[in-house]
Amino acid sequence: MEAFSDGVMAIAITLLVIEIRLPESQDDLLKQLLGLWPSYLAYLGSFATIGVIWLTHHAFFARIRQVNGPLQVGNLLVLLCVAFLPFPTTVLAHHLEDGGRNAGVATAFYFLTAAVQAGAWVVMWSAVRRDPTLLRPGYPATVARTETRQAAIGFVALAAIAVIGLFVPIAALTFYLVAVVGYALPAMAWPRHTRSRAGRASD
Amino acid sequence: MEAFSDGVMAIAITLLVIEIRLPESQDDLLKQLLGLWPSYLAYLGSFATIGVIWLTHHAFFARIRQVNGPLQVGNLLVLLCVAFLPFPTTVLAHHLEDGGRNAGVATAFYFLTAAVQAGAWVVMWSAVRRDPTLLRPGYPATVARTETRQAAIGFVALAAIAVIGLFVPIAALTFYLVAVVGYALPAMAWPRHTRSRAGRASD
Amino acid sequence: MEAFSDGVMAIAITLLVIEIRLPESQDDLLKQLLGLWPSYLAYLGSFATIGVIWLTHHAFFARIRQVNGPLQVGNLLVLLCVAFLPFPTTVLAHHLEDGGRNAGVATAFYFLTAAVQAGAWVVMWSAVRRDPTLLRPGYPATVARTETRQAAIGFVALAAIAVIGLFVPIAALTFYLVAVVGYALPAMAWPRHTRSRAGRASD
Amino acid sequence: MEAFSDGVMAIAITLLVIEIRLPESQDDLLKQLLGLWPSYLAYLGSFATIGVIWLTHHAFFARIRQVNGPLQVGNLLVLLCVAFLPFPTTVLAHHLEDGGRNAGVATAFYFLTAAVQAGAWVVMWSAVRRDPTLLRPGYPATVARTETRQAAIGFVALAAIAVIGLFVPIAALTFYLVAVVGYALPAMAWPRHTRSRAGRASD
Repeated sequence: MEAFSDGVMAIAITLLVIEIRLPESQDDLLKQLLGLWPSYLAYLGSFATIGVIWLTHHAFFARIRQVNGPLQVGNLLVLLCVAFLPFPTTVLAHHLEDGGRNAGVATAFYFLTAAVQAGAWVVMWSAVRRDPTLLRPGYPATVARTETRQAAIGFVALAAIAVIGLFVPIAALTFYLVAVVGYALPAMAWPRHTRSRAGRASD
Repeated sequence: MEAFSDGVMAIAITLLVIEIRLPESQDDLLKQLLGLWPSYLAYLGSFATIGVIWLTHHAFFARIRQVNGPLQVGNLLVLLCVAFLPFPTTVLAHHLEDGGRNAGVATAFYFLTAAVQAGAWVVMWSAVRRDPTLLRPGYPATVARTETRQAAIGFVALAAIAVIGLFVPIAALTFYLVAVVGYALPAMAWPRHTRSRAGRASD
Repeated sequence: MEAFSDGVMAIAITLLVIEIRLPESQDDLLKQLLGLWPSYLAYLGSFATIGVIWLTHHAFFARIRQVNGPLQVGNLLVLLCVAFLPFPTTVLAHHLEDGGRNAGVATAFYFLTAAVQAGAWVVMWSAVRRDPTLLRPGYPATVARTETRQAAIGFVALAAIAVIGLFVPIAALTFYLVAVVGYALPAMAWPRHTRSRAGRASD
Repeated sequence: MEAFSDGVMAIAITLLVIEIRLPESQDDLLKQLLGLWPSYLAYLGSFATIGVIWLTHHAFFARIRQVNGPLQVGNLLVLLCVAFLPFPTTVLAHHLEDGGRNAGVATAFYFLTAAVQAGAWVVMWSAVRRDPTLLRPGYPATVARTETRQAAIGFVALAAIAVIGLFVPIAALTFYLVAVVGYALPAMAWPRHTRSRAGRASD
């Protein structure tokens, strides 16, 4: 299950680039390359999004001892959204500059996909809360309650960003960028000296 | 063999999305996105199909101790069909709305691919039935007989859906959807508390 | 090295399908699908080719205990050709029906790629012949001599098929098909009861 | 982390080929195939580049015992550049023949991507220099200082090639080719008889 999930995420993150294409144009190449800035932004954003999902996925399965039905359904829903993400990424890259209603629709479509993905984590952590024997020994049952609440906050936040994005795309994108950086940086930039976890991570 | 098969299935399931494209159009983006509903349906259907094949594949090799010639040929035939599936998926997505004969041909083409894949499992389980020493200890030889019959039913059902689809695409697609959900849900939604199997799955 | 090689081969075999596309056409869909027969043939041929390379690759590394410089160069050359194969496959699929000089050029281009790949195995087995300590214990040094000769025959045969294909494409393709089936079938269709090898293959 | 990185690199190296396409043309096929020489060169160059990054990646993690925040950020930056590389490769392949300013811009864009990737290794080795306990036992702390300097030289060299490429593309490409071959050949062409390292590599 985890090797398959890793494979799907590695492929989705690498497929993002094949939608970046130079337009048919007589312009100077430099101007064409600079004109693709929405594609670069969308590439960076989706790379970061899948990166965060990958970290979340590993942090989840590192604490899980057993997989039951709801976990399998939830995991497949995550993969469905991750594998689908290159499409809303392209739509966003191509229509952000349209402005007006189209930019809003493209932004809302992107964050709707992200919100469905976040909803899958609510499903999965709720299943663990209902049956704490799914946790590996050493993790208290309260972990599941805390994480379910966290996942629900993520889901509500992304759904709210989707609604905001429909009307003010730039506000939604800025807010999301801040949130991803705020989520990822503390997890990354702090040196980890606890040997057992780092040893596992470096394998 | 299993790592390679897993890789092919992970890639095929992720490649499905790159055939979803916005048409060249002056329409409002929302209208364009909604107009792609056959592509979303086809994406979901093929994601579910490859997901079920992946589950079947793992359930098979979890019971097999040895691989012989017919198993290798059968496994390659499964992978050939899985890797090919993005093409009939695209054909179905683009021609379902044509209606008439084209919709029928697209539907039949899709289920023909699925039926050939199902046929490979008949080949593989028959090989196990002929030589039950291929099974891991603890699995009785009768497993192979039951599973061969199951696989044959799957093959006949998919071939029948292909024929029905040629004439009444919507009936074939509805029937298939019900069958996939009916197959996948019991396998997924039931909590599994048998520790050894779940422990293996969570690795 | 082996996981990376497996990944490249799994991806290349799955990417073959994305070059199969329906032409822009007003024809009946059935006629369009049937008209793609050269694409189906090319897909099958390249799937079989990569499948055989994958078997060869595993059979090689199963006998190798150590990797030295020439083996790394040779292995990279194999991967370079495998990853490149989708391009000559597409060229062949699109130009076989042109007939005349174009069909010949497309056929020669395809088998030239296959021949370069075969040449890499000559490099690799020659390196093993020069330094038999690279072999795992239990394999006599004469294995390297036999296999170098086999690889050289494969290289010469594919180069000859490329030359023949330039003038009589259909003869080259028929001959290759027979050769692949003749190579793959005995390796596959014979039941393998030697437990240690089969056990390893089923892991 | 390493399996995911391996996956991204294997996919990026295999995706390079799907941007090689025959132009719409009435020319003889042989002429068309020969006319794609910049695409073949770019394919070879990017294959070699990702190959070298893969070797660097494995040589790095073979010496690392623990992963901390900066290493995770650095590794993600490497993967971001590797996954992005197919785009500058295509830009270079399609615009090298334009000559003049466009060829320069395409060349600079390519080496800018390579330089950012090289910069990630400076970040990573500096982090190891600041905290030598990240190294596996047996590697002296001086390794980190030497490697940081090496990585910095690589970064400066690639940035310089990007600047030179803006004005004299052919000089930059020639210099890079010599540098890659000069870097890769000694690492590859020397037989390695130290058993422990080779044994690890062949697993």
